[in-house]
Amino acid sequence: MNIELLNTGSELMLGRVLNTHQQWLCRRLADLGYSVTRQTAAPDTAIGIQSAAREALGRADLVIVTGGLGPTSDDVTRELIAQLLGKKLRLDDAVLAHIQRRFAARNLPMLKSNEVQAMVPEGARVLANPNGTAPGLAMKIDDDGRWRMANGEKERPPSSIRPPPSSRSPKWLVMLPGPPRELRPMFNEQVVPLLRREFPLDAPFVCRTLRTGGVAESLVQAQIQSPLAALVAAGLDVGYCARVGQVDVRLSARGAGGGEMVRDAEAIVRKIFAAQIYGVDDEEIEAVVVRLLAERRKTLALAESCTGGCLAHRVTNVPGASAVFLGGFVTYSNAAKQKFLGVRAETLAAHGAVSEVVAREMAGGARVQTGADFAVAVTGIAGPDGGTKDKPVGTVFIALAGESGTLVERRMNSYERETFKQLTAQQALELLRARLISP
Amino acid sequence: MNIELLNTGSELMLGRVLNTHQQWLCRRLADLGYSVTRQTAAPDTAIGIQSAAREALGRADLVIVTGGLGPTSDDVTRELIAQLLGKKLRLDDAVLAHIQRRFAARNLPMLKSNEVQAMVPEGARVLANPNGTAPGLAMKIDDDGRWRMANGEKERPPSSIRPPPSSRSPKWLVMLPGPPRELRPMFNEQVVPLLRREFPLDAPFVCRTLRTGGVAESLVQAQIQSPLAALVAAGLDVGYCARVGQVDVRLSARGAGGGEMVRDAEAIVRKIFAAQIYGVDDEEIEAVVVRLLAERRKTLALAESCTGGCLAHRVTNVPGASAVFLGGFVTYSNAAKQKFLGVRAETLAAHGAVSEVVAREMAGGARVQTGADFAVAVTGIAGPDGGTKDKPVGTVFIALAGESGTLVERRMNSYERETFKQLTAQQALELLRARLISP
Repeated sequence: MNIELLNTGSELMLGRVLNTHQQWLCRRLADLGYSVTRQTAAPDTAIGIQSAAREALGRADLVIVTGGLGPTSDDVTRELIAQLLGKKLRLDDAVLAHIQRRFAARNLPMLKSNEVQAMVPEGARVLANPNGTAPGLAMKIDDDGRWRMANGEKERPPSSIRPPPSSRSPKWLVMLPGPPRELRPMFNEQVVPLLRREFPLDAPFVCRTLRTGGVAESLVQAQIQSPLAALVAAGLDVGYCARVGQVDVRLSARGAGGGEMVRDAEAIVRKIFAAQIYGVDDEEIEAVVVRLLAERRKTLALAESCTGGCLAHRVTNVPGASAVFLGGFVTYSNAAKQKFLGVRAETLAAHGAVSEVVAREMAGGARVQTGADFAVAVTGIAGPDGGTKDKPVGTVFIALAGESGTLVERRMNSYERETFKQLTAQQALELLRARLISP
Repeated sequence: MNIELLNTGSELMLGRVLNTHQQWLCRRLADLGYSVTRQTAAPDTAIGIQSAAREALGRADLVIVTGGLGPTSDDVTRELIAQLLGKKLRLDDAVLAHIQRRFAARNLPMLKSNEVQAMVPEGARVLANPNGTAPGLAMKIDDDGRWRMANGEKERPPSSIRPPPSSRSPKWLVMLPGPPRELRPMFNEQVVPLLRREFPLDAPFVCRTLRTGGVAESLVQAQIQSPLAALVAAGLDVGYCARVGQVDVRLSARGAGGGEMVRDAEAIVRKIFAAQIYGVDDEEIEAVVVRLLAERRKTLALAESCTGGCLAHRVTNVPGASAVFLGGFVTYSNAAKQKFLGVRAETLAAHGAVSEVVAREMAGGARVQTGADFAVAVTGIAGPDGGTKDKPVGTVFIALAGESGTLVERRMNSYERETFKQLTAQQALELLRARLISP
C-alpha cells in the first residue's frame, strides 16, 4: 500500500510559503501505520499538476492532492484533475447551497466566481467542508483500470494512468483544500475513515521515538546497533534523526509481536542511554523540565549572558511555565552582571566575564535575588567576535545552583551564533533535567 | 531551464521533521531569477531515492538533492546516486583530513563510520563544508548524454537517465548536506556561482523585496495595485508573502530596463508605505533596530512578561547586539515586576499585571535600572489560559520609554502561544524602530 502526496501551488515553488501540509499529513499517516512513499510539490499549471498527478497515480494506491480548490484564478486543481481523468464537472446543488449559506451567515456578498467551488467531477464523492467553502473530493479508480461512476457505469481512463496489473486496487485520489484549518479536520473526520475502510492495514503497527541529548549521532548508532541486531533481524525498524546536540532514535515494527519488539528495543536503548534520553515522541526538553519542576513543586530562575534570552524564551514557550519560572535576567554587560546578579567586580577583573567563577556567581545571584529553588546561568562567547586563544568563540560555562550546591560545566560549542545559542540552551536544560531526576 | 529539488529522508516521509529546505531553496532560486518546476521528497531507500532522481534528471536541467550525506546507516544518498549514475566512490584524502580536524577540534573521538563522508563519486566536484563534516557534491552530465569525468574521459550513463535530445544540456546534479546551517552557506557560496556559470540567465533578472510590518495583506495589495498597474502592464511582477503581522512585497522584472522598472516600483511602494517598510530582502527587524541604535549611539533595555525572553533572544541573535543592548528582565511574576523593575504594588492591585500602567512602569523601571536610553516593556496574556472578558487571551500592552517620554500601545494578538510571542516581539521592535527613525 503506497500513498503519495501532491501539494499544488505556485507560491510553494517560489518559496513564499512553507509547506506544512507535508509534515502534518505524513505524520498523521505514519501514526496510523501507513507509509507515504513520495511527496511532490508542483506549480499551478496544467503541465505541473497533470503530469505530477498522472505519475503519482501510476505508482501509488492513494494520491492525496492539496490546494487549488478555491475561487480565484490560480485555483486550478479541481479542473485539471477532472480533465486529466476525462471527467466532466457538474454543479452540485448541495455544495452550492452550503457556500451560499456561509456567505449569508457572514453578511457577505457571494461573487459569481465562488460558484466554481460547487463544481464536482462526475463520479466523485464530496467531502463536506464545515470550516470553509470548497469541499474536498474523493475519486475511486476501479481495479480493472476503469473508473467506477456514481451511477455504476464504467469508463476507460486515459491509458497513461491505468494502474499496472500487478498493482493493488482499487486506487483512490483525494483532493483537499489548502487552508490547514479546513484540511486538517477534513482529513481526520472524512479521509481517515475512508482510508481504514478502503485500505485496511495488513498488520498492526507500533512506533516509538526516544529523544537523546548530548551524544553524537554516530555514537548513538555505534552503541545500539549490535544490541539491537537480533530485533532488527526479526523485523524491527530503527531510524535516526539528528539535530544539533540531539539525536532521535525511532523504533517501529509491524505485525503480531511488533509491540513487544518495540518495547524490548526501547528497554535496550534506555539501558545504554539512561541519562541521555530526555523524552519520547514529540516531547521537547523544555516541556520535560517544566513538567519535572511542576511535579516536584520547584521553581526556576535564569541568568543569561551569551544565550541572550533564548533559554527563557524556550522555557516560556511551554504552557504553564509561569507556575515554575520566577524570572530571568539577560545580562550582557558586566555592569548588569554586577548590579542585578551580585557578581563581584574582583571576580570579573580576575577571571573575565566568561569564566567558571562568574557563571557560578551569576547562578547563585539569580537564585538569591528571585528566591527560586534552582537557577541556571550561562556565560560564553557566541561570536562571531570576542574570542581569545584561551577562550575561543564557542566557549561557554553553564552553572546550575540549587539547594545542594552549584555545579559548573564548560562546553565548546563551535557553531554560528544562533545554533550556538540553541545548543547552549539545550545543554543548560539537560543539566537541569539531570539534577531534577537524580538530585 | 528547469530546476527540481529532491529532498531525501525517511524522517520527512514520517512527518518527523518539517521540510524547510524546500521553501529556503525555492525562495533563493526565485530571487536569483530561476524557477523550480517540481519538488519531490523521498524516503531513504534505493527505490525511493533512485527512482525519484532518475525521473527528475529526465525532466530538469539541474537537480538539487538534499540530505543523506551523514555518517549513519540511513545516510544513503551519496551511495545510491553514485550507483544510479554508474560511478564508483573513492576516498578523498582532503575531505577525510577536514573531517579528522573537526573531530580533533572538539576533542571528540572519530569513529570509522565517519569516513564514509569522505567518499566521493568519480568525477564529482567536492563542495567544501566549513560548517560540518559531509561535503556537498556536484556532478555534471554532459550534453551528449555521457558523463564528463574529472580526467576528461567520458562514459555512458544508464540509458534511463540519458537526457532527451531536445533538452538543454549539460545537466547537473548537486547533492547538499541536510543540516540547514551547512546547506545554506554552501548553497550561497558554492552552488550560486556554479549556477550562474553553468546556467546563465537569458535576460538579466532584478528582484527586490520590501518588508512591511503592521499592514494586512489585502490592504497592501489594495493600496499599491493601481499605482503599479502601468509597470505591471510593462512586465513588472509583483508578489506578496504574508506571515503573521508582516507582508513582504516582491518586485521583479526580467530583461533590459528591468532594473529601472523595479526601482520605479520601489519608489512608488515606499511613498505609500513609508512608515511600514522596515527593511529590504532578507533583513529582519531586529537587525534593523540594532543597526539604528548603533548608528545613533543609543542603548536598549528590555522588560518582558508575556514574551518571556523572545524579544531579548531576537535582539541578541544580531551580531554586535552587545554594543547596544544593556540588559533584559523576564518578569513573569508580580514579585519580579516589583523587585527588579520597581512596579508599584498599588498599580498591580488597581490595574492588574496586564495593563497600560504596568507596562509603563515596567519600561520606566527597566530604563532607570539599566541606565539605557530606551526601554521596551511588554505585558499580556499569551494563553492558552489566563484570559478574562475584559482582557481575553491575546491582549498585550507594549511600552516604549525614552528621553522624550513613554508611549504605550494596546494590541490584540489572538494567536496560539508561540505565534503570539513572535508577533508581539515584532510589534515591539516596530515601535522602537519608528521612534528611532523619527524621534
